[in-house]
Amino acid sequence: MPLSDPAKNPAHLRQLEEWLRSYRPEELFDERGRLLPELADLAPKGPRRMGANPHANGGLLLHDLRMPDFRDYAVQVPSPGTGGIGDTHILGRFLRDVIRVNADQRNFRIFGPDETISNGLEAAFEATNRQWEADMETNDEFLAPTGRVMEMLSEHQCEGWLEGYLLTGRHGLFNCYEAFIHIVDSMFNQHAKWLKVSAALPWRPKIASLNYLLSSHVWRQDHNGFTHQDPGFIDHVVNKKAQIVRVYLPPDANCLLSVMDHCLRSRHYINVVVAGKHPAPQWLPMDAAVVHCTEGIGIWPWAGNDSGAEPDVVMACAGDVPTLETLAAVSILRAELPELKIRVINVVDLMKLEPATEHPHGLSDMDFDSLFTTDKPVIFAYHGYPWLIHRLTYRRANHHNIHVRGYKEEGTITTAFDMTVLNDMDRFHLVQDVIDRLPQLISRGAYLKQRLQDKLVEHRRYICEHGEDMPEIRNWKWPGPAAK
Amino acid sequence: MPLSDPAKNPAHLRQLEEWLRSYRPEELFDERGRLLPELADLAPKGPRRMGANPHANGGLLLHDLRMPDFRDYAVQVPSPGTGGIGDTHILGRFLRDVIRVNADQRNFRIFGPDETISNGLEAAFEATNRQWEADMETNDEFLAPTGRVMEMLSEHQCEGWLEGYLLTGRHGLFNCYEAFIHIVDSMFNQHAKWLKVSAALPWRPKIASLNYLLSSHVWRQDHNGFTHQDPGFIDHVVNKKAQIVRVYLPPDANCLLSVMDHCLRSRHYINVVVAGKHPAPQWLPMDAAVVHCTEGIGIWPWAGNDSGAEPDVVMACAGDVPTLETLAAVSILRAELPELKIRVINVVDLMKLEPATEHPHGLSDMDFDSLFTTDKPVIFAYHGYPWLIHRLTYRRANHHNIHVRGYKEEGTITTAFDMTVLNDMDRFHLVQDVIDRLPQLISRGAYLKQRLQDKLVEHRRYICEHGEDMPEIRNWKWPGPAAK
Repeated sequence: MPLSDPAKNPAHLRQLEEWLRSYRPEELFDERGRLLPELADLAPKGPRRMGANPHANGGLLLHDLRMPDFRDYAVQVPSPGTGGIGDTHILGRFLRDVIRVNADQRNFRIFGPDETISNGLEAAFEATNRQWEADMETNDEFLAPTGRVMEMLSEHQCEGWLEGYLLTGRHGLFNCYEAFIHIVDSMFNQHAKWLKVSAALPWRPKIASLNYLLSSHVWRQDHNGFTHQDPGFIDHVVNKKAQIVRVYLPPDANCLLSVMDHCLRSRHYINVVVAGKHPAPQWLPMDAAVVHCTEGIGIWPWAGNDSGAEPDVVMACAGDVPTLETLAAVSILRAELPELKIRVINVVDLMKLEPATEHPHGLSDMDFDSLFTTDKPVIFAYHGYPWLIHRLTYRRANHHNIHVRGYKEEGTITTAFDMTVLNDMDRFHLVQDVIDRLPQLISRGAYLKQRLQDKLVEHRRYICEHGEDMPEIRNWKWPGPAAK
Repeated sequence: MPLSDPAKNPAHLRQLEEWLRSYRPEELFDERGRLLPELADLAPKGPRRMGANPHANGGLLLHDLRMPDFRDYAVQVPSPGTGGIGDTHILGRFLRDVIRVNADQRNFRIFGPDETISNGLEAAFEATNRQWEADMETNDEFLAPTGRVMEMLSEHQCEGWLEGYLLTGRHGLFNCYEAFIHIVDSMFNQHAKWLKVSAALPWRPKIASLNYLLSSHVWRQDHNGFTHQDPGFIDHVVNKKAQIVRVYLPPDANCLLSVMDHCLRSRHYINVVVAGKHPAPQWLPMDAAVVHCTEGIGIWPWAGNDSGAEPDVVMACAGDVPTLETLAAVSILRAELPELKIRVINVVDLMKLEPATEHPHGLSDMDFDSLFTTDKPVIFAYHGYPWLIHRLTYRRANHHNIHVRGYKEEGTITTAFDMTVLNDMDRFHLVQDVIDRLPQLISRGAYLKQRLQDKLVEHRRYICEHGEDMPEIRNWKWPGPAAK
């Protein structure tokens, strides 16, 4: 590099020659410029060559994980809105048994920055411990010299451990607070680039996917506050090659089980799964969850009332909290404006929204238009920064009718519901959005709109006085019939 | 936190009481529950209080930087396309003198991960040194116990140093390779959140902006390859609050001087400036650069030919390499299809593209429509991931006509021009885009299109054989008249 132009600068050419001659090429090559055979013989042969060594080509060493049947861990959902204990707590039992059935293969580990319990995966410690090489104190919990959980309060270390583990032919999961996964943005970049390039090399068999479970997410950081609220990792991830990246937002525990089963079986992807750990309503029985997650996006017929008719409005949602607020908004609309035809769409696999030409999971325009219509307003409640939905859908026919609510960088230490209010994604705002976007409601809806605004004032007063959400928010239940 | 429900669980309430009583409240409060006066007196008073201490409220200590006149560092641009030495090398001289004129104030520093010279700011070492506390060897360069440049090959350390420096009332600049600034994504998040919240506190005067100079950028990492190519920091930044973030893509050295002068004078922003360090054409004399950067976006009348007429196509560009390729494409179009009316728009301030309702810099719809038309194809060459332009413009009337080329995660170790070819952003692809988007050219343009495709084949063959770009690429010059 310091010799910028040896082709034209004789002084540079002379320096280049001096430097190369310092390696004494006359001792290395014969008179025709060929490497001497005794030197060529020094190079390792066969699988001792660096690129052919199976320890540097983990796909050669990869064994499938033995998988327990995720359906066995299902939550019973006799009707939509059944109370749950927190989606990741259910997932924890499944992961516990993944650890158990692969114990003798020793090829599965969970990594995380001391948040395995905080993220709801405490069941893992029924089957294993945190691997720990140092001294132990009597009140330490779940530490042992061997264990399948690797914890260290360094997201960098966890990411590096997991990448190395995958590259040498094993399987794993990184669980992390959503906001702080940005710490490894740059490491993620390099792994995604590596996957893209290595996928094109025929002598490199595929390796297991890098799976992120992001919990303790933006909407339930009401007690930790603004510093802990950042759903932007998804935006970062979708900049990388479509053949490599996948993003899933399961709305409940059964969907989370189905998604994670798929992710742990998959190869050569980076899977990002965002899920809640707090008690939250469960929507789908396991059979329906499997169908929904396999399709990645779908109408929830039991939630809407437009079957056999044109909808007046499409209510779409992606993520557990947006799904809750959307269904609460739909329950208000169906009670107050029963003649309104509403279609409810839930998105699990975010990449379904992209055109099929841009992402292998993308819906065809025909399928997208059929779901989202080509001319009806779509009120979309999304887990992250709202503009990502526009970035994914800007080529769709109905794009100008898509109105997205999501996290717009407003938050503080407050109540869980107030987080949605601060970002205009709560049920009351969503209903107002419907009124604003439907010409037939613009004057007739004024009374309802005012009542909703009154509700928001009442909410504000109530949380300031009581420090918790109004009973009608805390105790809200989906009033409709069961999913089939 | 472990006592989840003391209000309803008597055992929890008892534990809570025991815990609180362990602090012996009877020694701290009188019988009416008031803190004892002798204890209250222990608290610091006035500016010794933590929140009132000026060392924790840097805005109180902030002095304006003394600024040399940036116009004195101007590159002479007798006609557009004049050769330059690399934009950041020009900026380096200006920064050198910022250091000099503030030497006795000691309130300006440059931070970076050992790339100050590599990023083209070598002139800084005419005025100062790298601050260095450890041993020095005889062949060390520019080390001294005091110096205004802080280098350490840790982007985390540089970001932390600079944040602390700004928070205590000083000024600074972080220069970094573009791809690796993602290392501090999470730290950037927290600083942006802090600026948003503190801007609302009347007792916190504003502090100096956090300025990033990203050089050695995605398009000129042809020699380092794919690992060094990532323009996604801009996407990360624009998720934060519009009142805090600013992104600038000066197309040449005079624009870079004007932009940096503005950034160093600004308060309470995060400014991201992306600029090149390699020899590249210069477009605007200083007077024109000042006007262009003040407006942030504008038509380059000397480059297009639609003055006084409706354009057939708008060629927009943002970033130094996209500007070069766009002007090269325009030169082909004007030679081959002289009857075509072309408007050339250059964007320096990316936030101009957002609606005025979303960002304080955003153009009004009227101004945007006037520039980009409401019905003509816009071929937009952009420095980063192309979808960001859609995310910024999706609400604009002509959005469906905007076709963006940018970095789509294709790259390797190759030539500089080949980087643009791999990502379809080179001059030949841009001309083809124009032909494809203009119905009047679709059949007439077929011959030209084929010649351009032949050119791309020739390019590929040439670089494989010669290891450098074709002479017509390396030696290309803007053929048009001078800017006024």
